[in-house]
Amino acid sequence: MVRLGPNRYGKAEVRVVSVVRGAAPGGDLVRDRCVSTTLWGDFAATHLAGDNRHVVATDTQKNAVYAFTGRLGDVEPEVLALALARHFVDEHRSITRARVRVEEFGWTRIDEAPHAFIRTGECVRTTTAVVDEALGARVLAGVERLTALATTNSEFWGFPRDAYTTLAETKDRMLATEVTASWLHRPALYHLASDVDWAPSWTAAYRALLAAFSETYSYSLQQTLFAIGRRIVETVPEICEVRLTLPNRHHLLVDLSRFGQQNENEVYEVPDRPYGLIEGTVVADDVSEDALAWS
Amino acid sequence: MVRLGPNRYGKAEVRVVSVVRGAAPGGDLVRDRCVSTTLWGDFAATHLAGDNRHVVATDTQKNAVYAFTGRLGDVEPEVLALALARHFVDEHRSITRARVRVEEFGWTRIDEAPHAFIRTGECVRTTTAVVDEALGARVLAGVERLTALATTNSEFWGFPRDAYTTLAETKDRMLATEVTASWLHRPALYHLASDVDWAPSWTAAYRALLAAFSETYSYSLQQTLFAIGRRIVETVPEICEVRLTLPNRHHLLVDLSRFGQQNENEVYEVPDRPYGLIEGTVVADDVSEDALAWS
Amino acid sequence: MVRLGPNRYGKAEVRVVSVVRGAAPGGDLVRDRCVSTTLWGDFAATHLAGDNRHVVATDTQKNAVYAFTGRLGDVEPEVLALALARHFVDEHRSITRARVRVEEFGWTRIDEAPHAFIRTGECVRTTTAVVDEALGARVLAGVERLTALATTNSEFWGFPRDAYTTLAETKDRMLATEVTASWLHRPALYHLASDVDWAPSWTAAYRALLAAFSETYSYSLQQTLFAIGRRIVETVPEICEVRLTLPNRHHLLVDLSRFGQQNENEVYEVPDRPYGLIEGTVVADDVSEDALAWS
Amino acid sequence: MVRLGPNRYGKAEVRVVSVVRGAAPGGDLVRDRCVSTTLWGDFAATHLAGDNRHVVATDTQKNAVYAFTGRLGDVEPEVLALALARHFVDEHRSITRARVRVEEFGWTRIDEAPHAFIRTGECVRTTTAVVDEALGARVLAGVERLTALATTNSEFWGFPRDAYTTLAETKDRMLATEVTASWLHRPALYHLASDVDWAPSWTAAYRALLAAFSETYSYSLQQTLFAIGRRIVETVPEICEVRLTLPNRHHLLVDLSRFGQQNENEVYEVPDRPYGLIEGTVVADDVSEDALAWS
Repeated sequence: MVRLGPNRYGKAEVRVVSVVRGAAPGGDLVRDRCVSTTLWGDFAATHLAGDNRHVVATDTQKNAVYAFTGRLGDVEPEVLALALARHFVDEHRSITRARVRVEEFGWTRIDEAPHAFIRTGECVRTTTAVVDEALGARVLAGVERLTALATTNSEFWGFPRDAYTTLAETKDRMLATEVTASWLHRPALYHLASDVDWAPSWTAAYRALLAAFSETYSYSLQQTLFAIGRRIVETVPEICEVRLTLPNRHHLLVDLSRFGQQNENEVYEVPDRPYGLIEGTVVADDVSEDALAWS
Repeated sequence: MVRLGPNRYGKAEVRVVSVVRGAAPGGDLVRDRCVSTTLWGDFAATHLAGDNRHVVATDTQKNAVYAFTGRLGDVEPEVLALALARHFVDEHRSITRARVRVEEFGWTRIDEAPHAFIRTGECVRTTTAVVDEALGARVLAGVERLTALATTNSEFWGFPRDAYTTLAETKDRMLATEVTASWLHRPALYHLASDVDWAPSWTAAYRALLAAFSETYSYSLQQTLFAIGRRIVETVPEICEVRLTLPNRHHLLVDLSRFGQQNENEVYEVPDRPYGLIEGTVVADDVSEDALAWS
Repeated sequence: MVRLGPNRYGKAEVRVVSVVRGAAPGGDLVRDRCVSTTLWGDFAATHLAGDNRHVVATDTQKNAVYAFTGRLGDVEPEVLALALARHFVDEHRSITRARVRVEEFGWTRIDEAPHAFIRTGECVRTTTAVVDEALGARVLAGVERLTALATTNSEFWGFPRDAYTTLAETKDRMLATEVTASWLHRPALYHLASDVDWAPSWTAAYRALLAAFSETYSYSLQQTLFAIGRRIVETVPEICEVRLTLPNRHHLLVDLSRFGQQNENEVYEVPDRPYGLIEGTVVADDVSEDALAWS
Repeated sequence: MVRLGPNRYGKAEVRVVSVVRGAAPGGDLVRDRCVSTTLWGDFAATHLAGDNRHVVATDTQKNAVYAFTGRLGDVEPEVLALALARHFVDEHRSITRARVRVEEFGWTRIDEAPHAFIRTGECVRTTTAVVDEALGARVLAGVERLTALATTNSEFWGFPRDAYTTLAETKDRMLATEVTASWLHRPALYHLASDVDWAPSWTAAYRALLAAFSETYSYSLQQTLFAIGRRIVETVPEICEVRLTLPNRHHLLVDLSRFGQQNENEVYEVPDRPYGLIEGTVVADDVSEDALAWS
């Protein structure tokens, strides 16, 4: 009467900190990561009968994360993610696809100290590698929890007005958002994956994102979204698609006239909820639909 | 050089509490909801040129949530979600699809008090209605943050052992999870949507979920997942598919022998991270692939 | 040039789940706790010179939590907390005071199942035992994350109006709060601590709290606070003081007249922040100041 | 039978963002704050009888936060906090003490952009001003959510061993903590409060904190705590006391030998809970106990 539909499983949020001792001219390096693994394959037997012969234990996946982190040493998160994903698919015949996602938190050296660090921003560098028996590999990189704000150069007007519309049009508003962005590298790259320079690629995309945000005169958050995606694709040749999720963190002018004061775009209240939520994708023109399947 | 790919937007997390005064024999009723709306349509103009003539402001969407909550009064969340989703598609030619998601938090009367309530559990009732110009409507219901635990009747063994496997096999373990479940109602229902008895349907599915969890002797969390999905589909005829996300909240026996004590499956530590994460779908046999597209 | 001022340390948030197998007529019992220990004593040497001979490692404290949980078996959290606090003070001459705080999360059996449970509400039962070499012992009990709401019988008016006052007076508002309460047992009790019936004591205080909330016609959240504290002290003879922290979770009527609708105290928006925060203490008349010192 | 004990109330977490347009050579300035106000006074009437004539509405307090933010313009948070606290005590005879706490979040300009910013770190600058009719004013400053890590130069051994001690001694461990620090300015300062240079004072204390953390060879987190407090007091003459809360974020070496690998202090797992929690105070020698009362 029923059948098993799509399914997958894995280990989520393996936090692993590694130190590369004496690696940098100034002293140690710190890599602080949270790794999640997900496997696809033929898991009908365990669902239907509790037969686990194809179920690579999630504890085993966790151990692999630790072991690969130690063995690979000081590599970019893309290299770790690809190696782990390939390992799962290569090692176990029953696994047809593996996805490894890495969140990397930044640390910065305290002054010139060789061994002491503080954690930088809320902003997280993300990496997702997918290795599929049939489709090959692909690598996503991105950023999360990057909060950006423009104090001007943002308008919002011309939207349709219906029975529920009370919002005033504005020719000058604050625009604030918390960027989640993910960009896909061109699949051809992965034949040469060991040659890819992941760190400069990520940095170039990150800088393009910031530049587009700060330079775009915006009539809607959607316009800003498209400008960011376009800038990344046009700046970083190996990137063929960008996905963006931009909450609109509304900044509302406080009415100070009630207290006999003016408020010339100076004082804002910032409710936590609700918030607008804008999601969109920007794609390189030369890429066919087919190449773009995300895991 | 680039083009706009898939995109959508909406208002997230509109928290709205409504009171139906004198509705219940014992006094008032409280409905505590968090509503998120998402719209699809032809939004190229705003992305490419900041032309907002098709952009129903997210503030307008928020207002509609409040207005429909007031107008519809004491209705199940499915009715609210369907009405709102239909409203967006019907009212605006540029909107081709709308999705409305409702989280509903439970409140219970304090003893016999007509006007005083306490909030019940962490468990949230969820509803998502999707109305699509071409595909029609569909309704999902479900539950989130339902934490369940079995003190026994769970084993885990027979999994493959590779170079990274250190986990011991066990014939008796604690099994704990925090259920996120979502079930799809058969599309045919929506022609008669006003006749559907949503509350008993949700309750029947919820009870089936609990019964399957408590009665299944489990050799893997996947087996428990499938048992839950099967039980819901087999118990509630209007449900044709169930999606489940089950984190495995590991309970690890503490080694008390170090203190000269025994620990016969009595004292457990419970790390927050990492955790297993099991995801799967159970589908009614008589449903074609095509009918099952989720938004 | 400097000296060491007040200091203390301990292990925070030891989550321990214990199962009492076959304890209840219907099957097992589950105790789900989060335990934090704090020690006071002569710790100057470690602060000034890194000499740890008086520093009971926090890892040792964690182990003691596990060991005592196993050894004591099915006891109320007050018994566990007192035993642990006494242990630290008795075992180590350098420790002059110990505080053990327990948060206990509720679980309820699924129907009649002997081994399957779901976690109940967000509401947490709290216990803090302090054992001090000089002052003896004291026990606090309480509740956290208890969200309560009154749909009527609440007014707020007559407050002073200054240049910054814009709030309208109201004769009928929603009153919602998330109760944090802590009540102190009369110190004399601890000579007989093993005879105290902690569970009924906690339940009586909890019921008094709910009854006072639901029965008080309130002109301010402060009045509700005092009514709750008074009711607990007057109902439960062994309790001599109650401390309450009550955030005022504002429920604001939505103006539906903009959409041609009425809103007769039916539809509310609920901002997350800011919120009022009311804190107060209610003390039994016959208790001297001195007896009331909290850790 | 009961009486009212200590009590207070206020408005918590008023988030206010202000923009100083054209203030900086490069463009605008952004001030992003979360302000909480707390009042003490004669509030018996409202607790006992719901008589609110002395209850300055928390909504009024919120309005004052917005109004003072607008009126004062680009000032340090200490100036805002002091002005607000003085206002409440001066304006309302029934208010005998006011405390205003400000959390300030950092923003940094995107490259050279005059109007675009990203939010920096998790680290928060804190300020608390207390104005008391009898005691005068005092100002605390500090930092929260400052995560620091030392990859070496930390040992932990020589601690007592009892029946529950299993922790191995170590001569080389990672030391990580999330600093919450608060420092008290010498009360005499407040007669001249308008002359105090709050920004350089905060920066000097913050730098002293980081320097002490990175330069201290540590035998216990307590030793690091004292070193931090001492360095701040010795470096910044106007500071007379420092309070520190340092969770010990344990980094545990992963045993890679199970996979045939070495782990020479390179790969660590980082459990979220439990964690050590070290709290202590460092006081300038020349300050009497009396002067140090914190609110």
